[in-house]
Order: sequence, then C-alpha cells, then structure tokens
Amino acid sequence: MRLSRDVAIVGAGMTRFHHKIHADKTSRELFVEAALEAADSVDNGFDMRDVEALFVGNFSSDAFEHQAHTAALMADWLGLCPRAATRVEDACASSGVAVNMGALAVASGAYDVVMVGGVEKMRNLTTEEVTDTLAMAADDLYEVAAGFTFPGLYASLATAHFAKYGSSWEQLAAVAIKNHHNGALNPKAHFQSSVMETAKKLGERRGVTFNDEMEFLRSPLNPVIAYPLRLFDCCPVSDGAAVVILAAAEVAKRFTDTPVYIRGLGQASDAMSLHDRADLTTLRATRVAAEQAYKMAGVSADDIDVADVHDCFTIAEVLATEDLGFFPKGEGGKAAEEGRTALDGDKPVNPDGGLKAKGHPVGATGAAMAYEMFKQLRGEAGRHQVEGVEVGLTHNVGASGATVVVQIYGR
Amino acid sequence: MRLSRDVAIVGAGMTRFHHKIHADKTSRELFVEAALEAADSVDNGFDMRDVEALFVGNFSSDAFEHQAHTAALMADWLGLCPRAATRVEDACASSGVAVNMGALAVASGAYDVVMVGGVEKMRNLTTEEVTDTLAMAADDLYEVAAGFTFPGLYASLATAHFAKYGSSWEQLAAVAIKNHHNGALNPKAHFQSSVMETAKKLGERRGVTFNDEMEFLRSPLNPVIAYPLRLFDCCPVSDGAAVVILAAAEVAKRFTDTPVYIRGLGQASDAMSLHDRADLTTLRATRVAAEQAYKMAGVSADDIDVADVHDCFTIAEVLATEDLGFFPKGEGGKAAEEGRTALDGDKPVNPDGGLKAKGHPVGATGAAMAYEMFKQLRGEAGRHQVEGVEVGLTHNVGASGATVVVQIYGR
Repeated sequence: MRLSRDVAIVGAGMTRFHHKIHADKTSRELFVEAALEAADSVDNGFDMRDVEALFVGNFSSDAFEHQAHTAALMADWLGLCPRAATRVEDACASSGVAVNMGALAVASGAYDVVMVGGVEKMRNLTTEEVTDTLAMAADDLYEVAAGFTFPGLYASLATAHFAKYGSSWEQLAAVAIKNHHNGALNPKAHFQSSVMETAKKLGERRGVTFNDEMEFLRSPLNPVIAYPLRLFDCCPVSDGAAVVILAAAEVAKRFTDTPVYIRGLGQASDAMSLHDRADLTTLRATRVAAEQAYKMAGVSADDIDVADVHDCFTIAEVLATEDLGFFPKGEGGKAAEEGRTALDGDKPVNPDGGLKAKGHPVGATGAAMAYEMFKQLRGEAGRHQVEGVEVGLTHNVGASGATVVVQIYGR
Repeated sequence: MRLSRDVAIVGAGMTRFHHKIHADKTSRELFVEAALEAADSVDNGFDMRDVEALFVGNFSSDAFEHQAHTAALMADWLGLCPRAATRVEDACASSGVAVNMGALAVASGAYDVVMVGGVEKMRNLTTEEVTDTLAMAADDLYEVAAGFTFPGLYASLATAHFAKYGSSWEQLAAVAIKNHHNGALNPKAHFQSSVMETAKKLGERRGVTFNDEMEFLRSPLNPVIAYPLRLFDCCPVSDGAAVVILAAAEVAKRFTDTPVYIRGLGQASDAMSLHDRADLTTLRATRVAAEQAYKMAGVSADDIDVADVHDCFTIAEVLATEDLGFFPKGEGGKAAEEGRTALDGDKPVNPDGGLKAKGHPVGATGAAMAYEMFKQLRGEAGRHQVEGVEVGLTHNVGASGATVVVQIYGR
C-alpha cells in the first residue's frame, strides 16, 4: 500500500477509561472531553475551525444508548457543523479503522486536517447485557446462536494454542501481571494498581494473605470465566473516548515541530466464525495487515521499539506478539514470562497497560492506541515512557480477528 | 475539494427493494446477491480477487438482526477475506457516505479497485419497532425523548415550508404521484404501480370509485401519518442491498469502455436536533455538500441532467430540489406540480421512483442511487431512462439532515 501523500498526528487527547467516574456522562460528553484535550495538546495552538472532517469509531451506541448517527452528533456537540462527519464500525477495531480512514481521506487530497476519534459508553448496561451486546460482533447465526460470547471464543483460541505449542495459562498470567504493572503508571488507565496490590486489598477484605501474584491468580478470587481464561485474563468493561488530530505532512509543521508520522498502515479481514478458519493459533488478518504496514513503512518487526497490541484477553496479546513477528510462533507467552515485553524489556508491549489494565471502551480503543503512540514518540508518556522510541506500532482487532488494523508510527 | 486522482464506477448491482420477497433472507444474502450482480455487470468480466477493499453502508443491523461488524461479515460471505472491510454508518446516508469513503480510499493511492455497497434488512421487526429503531438516527436525549420519530420531524419541516413559502400538501402529492409513476417503470422498485392503479385496486376492494388521484389521496384510504404528511407522503419500509465497483481512472478502462466517473463529491453535517437549526425550510448540509460537489466537478445546478434525491418523505424531495439549486427557494413544490421533475420534464428527479416508490432499506439507499446513475449515464435504465444524460447527481440524507452527501457523475 502507498499513499499519495504523508499524514501525521499533530495532537491527541483521551478521557480516563473507567467504569464509574463517567457514570453520569453520555458518549457526546466523553467525546467532547477527549477532543478538547486533543486540541489543547497541539503545540502551536489549534482552532476547531481547522478540522475539515471528523471520523468517529463507535461499536454500538445503538445498543448502548439507543443512539446511532454518532459521528454527526459528535460534530454537532463539538461545534464542527457543517464539516463532514463519518462513523466507522468494525467491532472493537472501529477507531483503529477510523484512523486508517482519516489517513486515507487526507492522503486523497480531499482534506488537509481531520479529527479522528472513538468513543463507547458501555456501562449503561449490566455486565450480562454488555456481553450480549458485544456478541453482535461475532456471527449471530452460527456462533452466538450456538452459545458463544467473546470469553468463550478467545478461550477456544487459548486452548488451541496450548495444545499446539505447549504454551500455558501461567504465561497468560504473566501478560496480566505486566499490563497491570504498566496500568498503575498510567493516569488514564481504568485499573491503576498492580496485581499484587489488588491481591493484598482483596485478601485483606477476606482475611487471606497471598505470598505472591500467582498464588492470588490461582485462587478463587480470580475465578475461571471461560476455561482456561480467568477473570484477570479478561479486560474490563469501560467507558471512554480518545481523539487524534491528523494533518497532511505539508501542513503538519504549522501545528507542531514534532508531529508523529503514520509511516505504514494495513487492514485485513478474516472469516467471521472460528469454525471457518484453517488455524486457531494465529490471526491471519494480523499477519496480512502487519505485512502491508511493514512494507509501506519499509521496516520489519525488529525495528519496532514499542507496540500497543489488542489484548482484550491475555491470549490475544500472545497471539499478537507472535503474528506481528515480534517472537517466533508459539513463543509469545514465553517472551512475556521472561519479561521481554515489559517496559524495560527488549520489546515493550502495551506500556499504557493495554486493554487489560487501561480498559476497553471498544469503539475508543484504536484511537487510544494512536494517542499512546503520539505520547511515546514525543517522549511524553510520563511514568510509562519507553526509552529511545523511534518506531511504534499499533494493532487493533475486531471481534475474534475478522478485522485487524495495524499502524506504524515514526518521527 | 480536490482528489489526487479520478475515480469511476465500473459495475453496479442491486436487489429488488421489497418488504416481502426477501422475508427469508438475511443481510448477508441480500448483499451477496447485489455484489454478484455488480460483478456480472462489468463489461469485460470481473474477478472478485480484483477487489482490494470493501466498504459497507449499514444503519443498524445491530438493532435489526443483532448483528454488528457488518462489513467483515459481508467480506466473509463474498469470499473477499483477507481484504480490508469497513462499515460506515451515517443513518440513512450510510452508503452514500460509503461511496465517498470508497472514492477517497482509491484517490489516496491505497487501493485501485474497491467495492462499495449498502444493505438493510428491516422487516424482521414490526413497523412500530422499525419506527423506534430509525429514531436512533435523531437525538435520543432531546428529540426522541420528547416523542419525535421521523414522520413527525419531516412533518415539522413541511409545515415550516408551507408557512414560509405558501407551498401546499397538493404539491407534495404531486411528488408522490410522479415517483409512483416512475417506480412502475422500474423492475427493482418496491412499489410498481401508479397512484391511480393503487386507487383503483384499493377502491374496488371497498366498493369505492375514485375519479382521479387527488380524490384518492384526500380520502381516508390515504390517512394522515403526521400532519400534513399522509401515508403516500412516506417511503415504505423495505429490505434490500446495492453495490457498486469503483476503480481508479487509470485502471477503469480495463473493466469497461464506458466507466461512469465521479466528477464531484461533497459531505456535510448539521445540528442533529431541529430545535438547534436557524431555519427549518432548508437543509444547510445539502447546500454545503452540493456546493463542494459542484465546485469539484466544475458544474452548476443547471448542468444536472438527472438527479436521484433523498425523498424519504415527499417534503424532502421539495427541499432537495430547492437546496440543490434546481429551483428557486420555495418553488420546488410548484415545479413538481408543473411536471418539471417528471421523466420528460426539464429537470428529471428520481426517475427510478425515489425512496418513495423504489423503497428505502436505509443503509442501501446511497449505493442504490450510485447504481441508478451508473445505469442512467450508460443509457441502460430501460423504461425509466432519461434522454440525453451527460451529468447526474445523487443526494443522500441522514436523518433530518444532520448528514448530507452529494455526488456528481459524468461520462
């Protein structure tokens, strides 16, 4: 894939992702909060009138808020009318795909400056209702009708991976421990305590003492959700929004001396239902989207200094780090266990806590990854900053892998 | 707006729009039917492997079929995986916006050939449930909470127009009569009988004779839905799909000697709620989107030989023909009454029957307009062909005008 002209991020904002603090807000309020922070983040100042088009990733405000036509509503509440406003829906990859759409729209010559964001307000519903709503991203006729929801679908991927490669639940636990550790360093994260801190707190309430994280993670306080996945293998249900401002390379310097360029992008699809896939131990769409993005950027997996990957479940991070080529197939879990994906590892993954600890308001996740790369590549990620970042990668998955989008960022 | 390179339609297909014949089909089956017809329509043959990305306009399969992630599902059922698949939702303008997105994606250089379509399977729900579901395209907190659904919103636009310009319900009736006449000439249309034929049929059942159309339209057999709009002022609830194949101008000739070029495009937003608009007698987003499209195409309203405009309600066609500049403000209804928008008028509008008679599976409507232009500009529209078409225009509205997209087509 090649674009007619280069595109850069010049500003980024996001709300905290959380399940309680946004209780009295609607999507429009969350989105405006993130968009205003994005505008404020532009070094040389930003006038909302510079926005020529808005792209909004959103999974299903239809089901969550009885509100569709989401992009036009956000444009209205941001005072952007009569600018073009487009909603993109590709399940949990909605705003990752929206970032691609925004980049293509700028590259097309149609617009010089666009705003791209994502939002989801999920917590109006109960957890059971959320699980049912998210299941709309799977095949309603073949998977949902058979009783599948997402914990079950990813559990299937996990057991297949265990069977083929001898990987283990302990390796998945290492992903959770690492991502909670990182989330504790990120003021925007949903969970801001390490697994050990949580073990201590929950243990105290019940008069139990845990000597280490694994003892806690093996205990009934971390119940099995869908074997082999336990509670701490699953991301939480969060509300939130994230927004980035994209500009054509030739105008980006008007806004900042340090834009973050989109060097590569890719997007791919795969069979919706797991039973239609040749192999459950890999996401083909990740491999195809990554290949496109690496080729366009002229880099390889080895060149990636930091990555935000889609860890809706811990097994998803293991699959991602393998399918993106960071580690050989079957060795993603081992790499996590060895600390290679930690903040100070040789391949830091999800420094912001990932979906696991940062939270996963599904439509906002892809844009939040772009936000993170904007911060990491400018050295502004604070306590979870990775050292010496030159090239960053984001990887956003829709459902069980029927959509995958990958972006590569550089300075 | 300018694009880095030109884009053309090289193939188009659509299902019939209808409320009964698709009863046992799902969205995926409707979409595949339209896509295969689009592929078959390509003069020099078409291999699905030529499709590099898919864009699907869909309003809310979430609510209609408990199925989101619609684009990936369509890619799967078309055998397009691992090609990129993106769903676009902008209410009833979803696939009109998808056509713009597809065009921008090609213009960006990312893809040479893309498939763009729209689909909606609405008839799983009752008419009451459909009305409630469509209301998600309005502002749930301010309009829907106050009791508004779309007939009421458009009725407000109608009474405002009547009050300001002295336009009348009789003028709206002229729009309905004209569009049913055209629909009767279109084998893809939902309704394929003229108003007079319907009057005769319904009258016979009840032992009533109507001497002319207006006598029928004023009778209790055409009840008031939301004053002043009666049943025949409202489009039906239909199921269906439409698909076009877009190619970069430099590869279009590989597929056909007579591609139809997208010469101009525009997209705009407006305040979601009617109470936030300065004027209810005009859709500002139509004027802005049209201005963009005319400018890009280098044409004016006078140059348009045929137009498909968004007549979800008859008043919407009147507003459109004025806001697009076909007729002076306040004279759109009069023009319809005088036959100027008829097939053989000086400004033919909705030769395919429009949403009014062709039907309105909301997510499919914009793509179906592009389909119609492909046929009209190639002289392949059969019994509803407009003579001597050189320049065509499509106008697709989301909700009560918070999204509008306009395309201009040429040979």
